[in-house]
Amino acid sequence: MKGITFLKAGDPVEQYLLIKQSTKGVTTTGKPFLTLIFQDRSGDIEAKLWDAGDEDEKKYQAQSIVKVAGEIHNYRGKNQLRLRQIRPATPADGVSIGEFLETAPVPKEEMMDQLTQYIFEMKNPTIQRLTRHLVKKHQKEFLEFPAATKNHHEFVSGLAFHVLSMLHIAKSLTALYPSLNKDLLYAGIILHDMGKVEELSGAVSASYTLEGNLLGHISLMVNEIGQAAKELEIEGEEVLMLQHMVLSHHGKAEWGSPKPPMLREAEILHYIDNLDAKMNMMDRVINRTKPGEFTERVFALENRSFYKPQMYEEENE
Amino acid sequence: MKGITFLKAGDPVEQYLLIKQSTKGVTTTGKPFLTLIFQDRSGDIEAKLWDAGDEDEKKYQAQSIVKVAGEIHNYRGKNQLRLRQIRPATPADGVSIGEFLETAPVPKEEMMDQLTQYIFEMKNPTIQRLTRHLVKKHQKEFLEFPAATKNHHEFVSGLAFHVLSMLHIAKSLTALYPSLNKDLLYAGIILHDMGKVEELSGAVSASYTLEGNLLGHISLMVNEIGQAAKELEIEGEEVLMLQHMVLSHHGKAEWGSPKPPMLREAEILHYIDNLDAKMNMMDRVINRTKPGEFTERVFALENRSFYKPQMYEEENE
Amino acid sequence: MKGITFLKAGDPVEQYLLIKQSTKGVTTTGKPFLTLIFQDRSGDIEAKLWDAGDEDEKKYQAQSIVKVAGEIHNYRGKNQLRLRQIRPATPADGVSIGEFLETAPVPKEEMMDQLTQYIFEMKNPTIQRLTRHLVKKHQKEFLEFPAATKNHHEFVSGLAFHVLSMLHIAKSLTALYPSLNKDLLYAGIILHDMGKVEELSGAVSASYTLEGNLLGHISLMVNEIGQAAKELEIEGEEVLMLQHMVLSHHGKAEWGSPKPPMLREAEILHYIDNLDAKMNMMDRVINRTKPGEFTERVFALENRSFYKPQMYEEENE
Amino acid sequence: MKGITFLKAGDPVEQYLLIKQSTKGVTTTGKPFLTLIFQDRSGDIEAKLWDAGDEDEKKYQAQSIVKVAGEIHNYRGKNQLRLRQIRPATPADGVSIGEFLETAPVPKEEMMDQLTQYIFEMKNPTIQRLTRHLVKKHQKEFLEFPAATKNHHEFVSGLAFHVLSMLHIAKSLTALYPSLNKDLLYAGIILHDMGKVEELSGAVSASYTLEGNLLGHISLMVNEIGQAAKELEIEGEEVLMLQHMVLSHHGKAEWGSPKPPMLREAEILHYIDNLDAKMNMMDRVINRTKPGEFTERVFALENRSFYKPQMYEEENE
Amino acid sequence: MKGITFLKAGDPVEQYLLIKQSTKGVTTTGKPFLTLIFQDRSGDIEAKLWDAGDEDEKKYQAQSIVKVAGEIHNYRGKNQLRLRQIRPATPADGVSIGEFLETAPVPKEEMMDQLTQYIFEMKNPTIQRLTRHLVKKHQKEFLEFPAATKNHHEFVSGLAFHVLSMLHIAKSLTALYPSLNKDLLYAGIILHDMGKVEELSGAVSASYTLEGNLLGHISLMVNEIGQAAKELEIEGEEVLMLQHMVLSHHGKAEWGSPKPPMLREAEILHYIDNLDAKMNMMDRVINRTKPGEFTERVFALENRSFYKPQMYEEENE
Amino acid sequence: MKGITFLKAGDPVEQYLLIKQSTKGVTTTGKPFLTLIFQDRSGDIEAKLWDAGDEDEKKYQAQSIVKVAGEIHNYRGKNQLRLRQIRPATPADGVSIGEFLETAPVPKEEMMDQLTQYIFEMKNPTIQRLTRHLVKKHQKEFLEFPAATKNHHEFVSGLAFHVLSMLHIAKSLTALYPSLNKDLLYAGIILHDMGKVEELSGAVSASYTLEGNLLGHISLMVNEIGQAAKELEIEGEEVLMLQHMVLSHHGKAEWGSPKPPMLREAEILHYIDNLDAKMNMMDRVINRTKPGEFTERVFALENRSFYKPQMYEEENE
Repeated sequence: MKGITFLKAGDPVEQYLLIKQSTKGVTTTGKPFLTLIFQDRSGDIEAKLWDAGDEDEKKYQAQSIVKVAGEIHNYRGKNQLRLRQIRPATPADGVSIGEFLETAPVPKEEMMDQLTQYIFEMKNPTIQRLTRHLVKKHQKEFLEFPAATKNHHEFVSGLAFHVLSMLHIAKSLTALYPSLNKDLLYAGIILHDMGKVEELSGAVSASYTLEGNLLGHISLMVNEIGQAAKELEIEGEEVLMLQHMVLSHHGKAEWGSPKPPMLREAEILHYIDNLDAKMNMMDRVINRTKPGEFTERVFALENRSFYKPQMYEEENE
Repeated sequence: MKGITFLKAGDPVEQYLLIKQSTKGVTTTGKPFLTLIFQDRSGDIEAKLWDAGDEDEKKYQAQSIVKVAGEIHNYRGKNQLRLRQIRPATPADGVSIGEFLETAPVPKEEMMDQLTQYIFEMKNPTIQRLTRHLVKKHQKEFLEFPAATKNHHEFVSGLAFHVLSMLHIAKSLTALYPSLNKDLLYAGIILHDMGKVEELSGAVSASYTLEGNLLGHISLMVNEIGQAAKELEIEGEEVLMLQHMVLSHHGKAEWGSPKPPMLREAEILHYIDNLDAKMNMMDRVINRTKPGEFTERVFALENRSFYKPQMYEEENE
Repeated sequence: MKGITFLKAGDPVEQYLLIKQSTKGVTTTGKPFLTLIFQDRSGDIEAKLWDAGDEDEKKYQAQSIVKVAGEIHNYRGKNQLRLRQIRPATPADGVSIGEFLETAPVPKEEMMDQLTQYIFEMKNPTIQRLTRHLVKKHQKEFLEFPAATKNHHEFVSGLAFHVLSMLHIAKSLTALYPSLNKDLLYAGIILHDMGKVEELSGAVSASYTLEGNLLGHISLMVNEIGQAAKELEIEGEEVLMLQHMVLSHHGKAEWGSPKPPMLREAEILHYIDNLDAKMNMMDRVINRTKPGEFTERVFALENRSFYKPQMYEEENE
Repeated sequence: MKGITFLKAGDPVEQYLLIKQSTKGVTTTGKPFLTLIFQDRSGDIEAKLWDAGDEDEKKYQAQSIVKVAGEIHNYRGKNQLRLRQIRPATPADGVSIGEFLETAPVPKEEMMDQLTQYIFEMKNPTIQRLTRHLVKKHQKEFLEFPAATKNHHEFVSGLAFHVLSMLHIAKSLTALYPSLNKDLLYAGIILHDMGKVEELSGAVSASYTLEGNLLGHISLMVNEIGQAAKELEIEGEEVLMLQHMVLSHHGKAEWGSPKPPMLREAEILHYIDNLDAKMNMMDRVINRTKPGEFTERVFALENRSFYKPQMYEEENE
Repeated sequence: MKGITFLKAGDPVEQYLLIKQSTKGVTTTGKPFLTLIFQDRSGDIEAKLWDAGDEDEKKYQAQSIVKVAGEIHNYRGKNQLRLRQIRPATPADGVSIGEFLETAPVPKEEMMDQLTQYIFEMKNPTIQRLTRHLVKKHQKEFLEFPAATKNHHEFVSGLAFHVLSMLHIAKSLTALYPSLNKDLLYAGIILHDMGKVEELSGAVSASYTLEGNLLGHISLMVNEIGQAAKELEIEGEEVLMLQHMVLSHHGKAEWGSPKPPMLREAEILHYIDNLDAKMNMMDRVINRTKPGEFTERVFALENRSFYKPQMYEEENE
Repeated sequence: MKGITFLKAGDPVEQYLLIKQSTKGVTTTGKPFLTLIFQDRSGDIEAKLWDAGDEDEKKYQAQSIVKVAGEIHNYRGKNQLRLRQIRPATPADGVSIGEFLETAPVPKEEMMDQLTQYIFEMKNPTIQRLTRHLVKKHQKEFLEFPAATKNHHEFVSGLAFHVLSMLHIAKSLTALYPSLNKDLLYAGIILHDMGKVEELSGAVSASYTLEGNLLGHISLMVNEIGQAAKELEIEGEEVLMLQHMVLSHHGKAEWGSPKPPMLREAEILHYIDNLDAKMNMMDRVINRTKPGEFTERVFALENRSFYKPQMYEEENE
């Protein structure tokens, strides 16, 4: 079945969808209605449920699965779903929430294998031990959390997928620039955003925890590294180097790093992070655009719009 | 005996002084000389030692005490000391380095008493316990370190003196604004710069440690609070609140706080810190200026120059 | 009777309210209606008056008092008032506009007494005379105007209340820092925003006057001080000092002060002004928030949201 | 006789010069000397007076005229004057300070005539009367002061010359854009920098007065206009308009105008001021440069360097 | 017949209008309607067409002419047109699109004559030849295009009108400042925005071309000058000077000029461009405002609002 | 023979060196001397030549080779060369300037081979043809010029070496991110700084040409691509894409790109350029630093200083 975002105006719809958001409204004549945003793996679409009473409001809350029938129509240049029928899914329907969530394109097990391999390649035993300890401690969340709540890699397992992409880049850069210390760079990449598992509330529909709000994932992770070193009775420069890699990876004070990178590997970590995040943002909007046209504006890329060259037609896709 | 910075051109000099800085130079005709900066508690003064050989260079290094004779003369609007005689002090002279260092105007014991009193006034047992633990742990350095390497309170015991000044302000503000939580504010003030005892190398001629450079006193202290809580087996919101107070006390990301204040008490801590630091900077330059004139420019106060009103003559001094 | 903002959905309403704002609308089917914002001392609430003709529009204008009956309902997470009955108040009802306006928590007479006391404490006769003259000249407006049209102290007598709060802080600071000149600081505080009585149109629903728009309260007050000195035939440094205190109290050119503070007292005036304004803003949103939750975002505080610690429950409230 | 800045290395010198600046120095071997900067109408040149005793220091102070003999030599790419003889000028020499100062290229009387003509053309009697009153009050200084202490029009009568240049531009602009109010624009130009006669200490070697430092020429002039209106018993919008023209003429808060231009004529005044000042700055450096080369960098023009095209050779000069 | 924007609430309307914009809407009860923006030479006005079917949507698209009847009414402080009748214009009506478009107040032929005269006055044959060649090449579009898609001179022939206004200013400035090279300045003005004929899609309802988006009018024109020089076999400094005039005319890198002005004439070109654009923006809003009131805010003028003095009543209009 | 920058104080020197810079000075007693900066492939060192007459000044100019004898001494923490003997090199000495210049570590022929291979891999014939044409046109300079006059790759053949480094990175990124168009990215990298061959004066001691100053290498290259397309009679989107790649490669208007990247490949080109330039800057200062210490500050890296971890000792070097 085609994803909901690939349908065209006039197409009929009859399928299960996840309610991502549900908001109550009142028409100017006083009639209540619900604005529902449905989601499947391809993205989301809006619909109105007219004459919705208090009971409907309870039945159709966010995170619940429904069976809908209706058709796609175009309203102000955007597709909407005009509902004919809607009912909550029951256990008998045999559908689960995971079927509707976007997920990294590589299975968790495979990502864990690759990660293990990168850790295995480290030569410095202190760095290796600290990294392995922290990965083990947070393994479950690390493999399930998104890399961010919006902008880039905001999907299930997005964090691990982002980290592995960065490790692949790091591998080729350390080959091209032998002066780079592979252990520091690999460990820095693996740990740089691990604090997100404490900053965010969960793998799905993540919001900020109190710790996340008041300290942020960078400070949380710097603390974690310090405590891990204490527990493992590790001493020496490596602990401080890794704390600095995490602390400085946003690159500048105004972007959230109280110290700028002062290690060659910390500077390069910042570039790799940036490059992979931006590629992810650009790919998303360019994939949704026809050759010869401009994408929608992307707020996190200085509100720029990107052009998809016509030559892509023959060569890239 | 009058401080060295209060002498006028023509005044004779014969006394002990501490060498703050010693730099070798060569005249354009190739003759070596030393530029010496002497210091006593009132401040410092420059002198030249002509025809200084390698031996002189070794004898007259920074941190050594000397006996000098000569006179004050004015060179390009600034006082200098023209040397007639100089010799290193010997143990027989019975002078010690402490006699030449600027020190907080309140003795350490008295400051410790006042601090204890403020901690005693706290009602929240968790905050009180954590604060007491950390003060005890760093007590010696906390009472001896400067508050900064330059700009404000850059003298022996400057850190404790700055903290107590801030506590006095906090006391009157909590009386005027009863909505402020006294425990949070007092503890935040006491801990806010305590990381400096790890960031700086010592109480005198302080430079930055490796930890200080790569993590900074804010991150160091946030970690310390976390570890102290672990050791004391303390849990609950208070730990996070205190970590946030320290983390946010520079007020803005670009000033080194990765999170801005999100507690009323954190916001007020930032103001009190600023106010006391600026008072200290202004007092120094205004004290050196005659009524009816402008002070030198102060770099840390946006390079401003301050006017000392003539009316100060009768009223303030 | 409970303030309108403290009622919950379902509560019946039958009371007098002030119309703060009245805006005409038309439904998409062409029927006219009025959106009314009602106010009492606790704040404001919105209501719709359906099928409102031209006559209703005239009857229910801003600044008029009405008697309403209806009930509270919740619309998109915000309380609204569903009107059943509404009529204009008549003289026979015996209600006056003052009953519906937020006002400083201290009576005008008491504030005037405190102000007089502060002026009485001044030792410099010139500063005292100038300050007394200007307070006398603008006494009525000074005691009634708000301190601003929005953001902080935006209520009846807000200006005087803000000034007195600042004077109380100044009193404790001059005790802690004896180098501060009390006369300059007190007079600077009293005069700093007095130009608002010319900048704003009145004590209630204040807007900007033409002078306010084109010159601003700072320039207006600097001129006033100059003219007052001329009238009183006062000469000497004090006039210039006070003009500078007012001129520089926003702290920086980009914040509206063409000269930055160049007097120690001017710098401190700027901090005190800031501190009291920010306390007022934070108190308002924190008072409306439950312990353990974040406040709404405050635009004038860099759009920050503040956390209200759970420990407040037992200790502060 | 050729101006001192037009001589070449090797040229003999025997003439009167004004000492612009005199600074005492000491060679590294302890011998005192004087660094003298001489000036005539074409600019200035440096010289050293070796073995200069205390008496020489007194004889050769700034603002005194001397007779010198020597020759030009080149030192690090800049011309210097190598002194053979020097003596103070005596009354018998019959030279006066005015002969050595750069002055506007139009005589004061002629500038006053032109100014009178522009005032005469005004149709609004209030604006005309206020302008005439203020010009009369400050006439002497207005015709003698420089427009600034550095950057542009920093010569005797520079203020009046700058104002007249601006009035000429205003005349052609009001012809091209009839919507501009000629009276407001002319009066705004005449008054915009008149506060400089209070801000600066005098027509020659001007420094800032205390009023100038603490209030600035903009605030000083806004006050003056207000007081003039009071004295002349003038009321009405025109006073406020002129105050705003002066207040806003720097264009932005960060450039010293607490209010931005809110009158069409105030906006245009800002542009004309800018244009004439920048022309003056560029002309100076380009005049000193050969066609086909770049000028020195100009700090007040964002540190830019300007190219003088080769085509200028035949066409412009 | 009076322009549509000069009518008052209650005035009847019966005339031809151009549809500038047409947007489909749906009422909350599901009924479709059209929001139409009509335009004539005086500006535009909004109207609602209720119960509009798919056929109406096709009939009443942007750029089509209609005959309407109805009346003006005021909705939320803005005039709207309440439609009674509407029908598409037919060829028999004899109306053409040009009658509804705002156009420069000077005919194209006259502007071309003036332009030819300015080119004729140039003395440098290279500059003259290059300028004439490029004007000839783009003559048709140059005389028809707007100067911008919004903000200033956004009307038919706005580009040529803006250029001629600038040339008139340049003529008086070169008379006042003889050091300015008239040929460079005139040619720079004529060419500075000529790249807009490639950047924009057409004279009416202009949007950006692909070249316009990816390179911009400045780079496009710099290239054009280079190619024209090649075709005409012109060599020498003049080509580079003109390319620099165009390249630098936005004044700063952040405003789109990769190099700041480094020629006196380039600096002045930037000021003249700015001055004429701002006059055009201010005149528009001030013309729509009554004396004694403030204009609406103008986004492109730092969101300022301008005051129209009362004295304008007698003198200017 | 060891490079001049690796010698220690006390080491004797007797070798050929290139004079990089020669500046005349005069001692305070009037004796002329020369400050010479000598260079070999390892870097440079300063020396003084006392009592240097006009003849010496001519003999020892920049770009001439000399034979020197003397020894290294330390002056204010920096090594200097104390000269005992100096004479100009003669043809008989058989030394050439190339022996003293830093050069890319890969021979030009090899770099050309690699470049040819990258061009060969392109699939789009238009991009390939344009790139090949431009490389051929500028081949000699492209292989010899530095990438910049300072900051990074400022050595002979630095431009080609930087481009090849970037191509290697691009090769691995296009493997990791298949959505990237290899042809556009390779061609963009090859052309992005080719304009430097017109912007700079030569391969050694490069300064800016007039074209370089007034237009800059970006605009120069955009023009070149346009003209090459004309000569080759190439049309189509590719020309515009490549012009945009070059135009936007500085990333932001304030960094010299009038348009920001609007192609995915243009964005990535900007990152790769940045990454390789920064690696080069960091490697240089870190190579000169001992493990466990901080490097000197690097102005082009926000004036940061980098830490060289102690663990480098065993692992990296």
